[in-house]
Amino acid sequence: MNKFKIVSFVLAGSLAASLARLSYVSTNNTSEEAAPAISKAAIVLENIHARKSVRSFTDQTVSREQLDTLLRAAMAAPTGWDLRPWCFAVVDDRKVLDELAEKMTHADALKQAPAAIVVCGDMSMTDRNGNKPELWEYDCSLASENLLLAAEAMGLGAVWMKVSPDAERMDVVRSVLGMPKYISPLNVIPVGYPKGNPQPKDKYDANNIHYNEW
Amino acid sequence: MNKFKIVSFVLAGSLAASLARLSYVSTNNTSEEAAPAISKAAIVLENIHARKSVRSFTDQTVSREQLDTLLRAAMAAPTGWDLRPWCFAVVDDRKVLDELAEKMTHADALKQAPAAIVVCGDMSMTDRNGNKPELWEYDCSLASENLLLAAEAMGLGAVWMKVSPDAERMDVVRSVLGMPKYISPLNVIPVGYPKGNPQPKDKYDANNIHYNEW
Repeated sequence: MNKFKIVSFVLAGSLAASLARLSYVSTNNTSEEAAPAISKAAIVLENIHARKSVRSFTDQTVSREQLDTLLRAAMAAPTGWDLRPWCFAVVDDRKVLDELAEKMTHADALKQAPAAIVVCGDMSMTDRNGNKPELWEYDCSLASENLLLAAEAMGLGAVWMKVSPDAERMDVVRSVLGMPKYISPLNVIPVGYPKGNPQPKDKYDANNIHYNEW
Repeated sequence: MNKFKIVSFVLAGSLAASLARLSYVSTNNTSEEAAPAISKAAIVLENIHARKSVRSFTDQTVSREQLDTLLRAAMAAPTGWDLRPWCFAVVDDRKVLDELAEKMTHADALKQAPAAIVVCGDMSMTDRNGNKPELWEYDCSLASENLLLAAEAMGLGAVWMKVSPDAERMDVVRSVLGMPKYISPLNVIPVGYPKGNPQPKDKYDANNIHYNEW
């Protein structure tokens, strides 16, 4: 009978310890759940600061599904008068990538990359007043930054390779990809898994900031 | 004595339930920790898709610290030849905001906003070849998108108000803020806490995508 008294004490002690641990785990969970806004902001800001230009890639391929995720991010950018004057060439055919690399100059990143996205403006579009999309370079730049940030978040690397406003370079891209003249390629963005350990730059400079007056 | 036998059974049952719950909580924690990459990508992509243009703001002020966080995000964008040809006017003086709102047209968002950031190009800079920063509009657009995405993540709202390439509008902004002629304001971005419930647009269109050939 005394045995059950001892067992009771042992069980009571074990239960107390178990409940204390459960209380600790639950409390920590609750405090994490209570601060989703802080957490989200920290993750998004960290990703913005972690983005870097990646010009060297491993052999690993990038799927059409991943490329579509990048394009969805790009098309979430704002555009002037909501005109959305963008279109995109996705290149994941090795022969086409190699031809682009060969005919463009300063395009070595394309030789290694398993894919590339060309962000373009469609000059055949007109806004509600019948004007050409004069802000296409801004709109397509914003879309490109979304794409670069999405790539970083997905563990991919990418880099903006200049095409526009170099008319000759724009014609080379049009020619290789069979684009009509009214399509204006802004850039070529090779995409792949980063090789090596590329690091982001700290470019903050307080001297660039003016408060209320110059 | 039988009392302790009953107590033992009750305690044993409680301990079993407590350990089962603890095991469940711990298992769930582990699986969450095992997938940080997926989680990070999901949060960054969700933020990109949640961003919307906000033109109506509550009375709540935005601190200099918050504005600095936005500027740090802006200056993390890539620039052509790493020239960083950007500079920023931060306006959080009510009188200056009102003067900007009055002298610019289509600038109602500035009347409510507690602050605004003007993203500018510095035309006095030269690249390594002595050329003017011809890509400043691309560079400053990329910086602006970083700023807009950072604002969204921080629970703030913002909107790109067009200034460049409208020469008259650029002169108005220069005049109100005392900017020298070699500073080119690209946009004015009001920043504040969103009023109402502005919603993002779904702008994905598969017709905008071309694979390997046009």
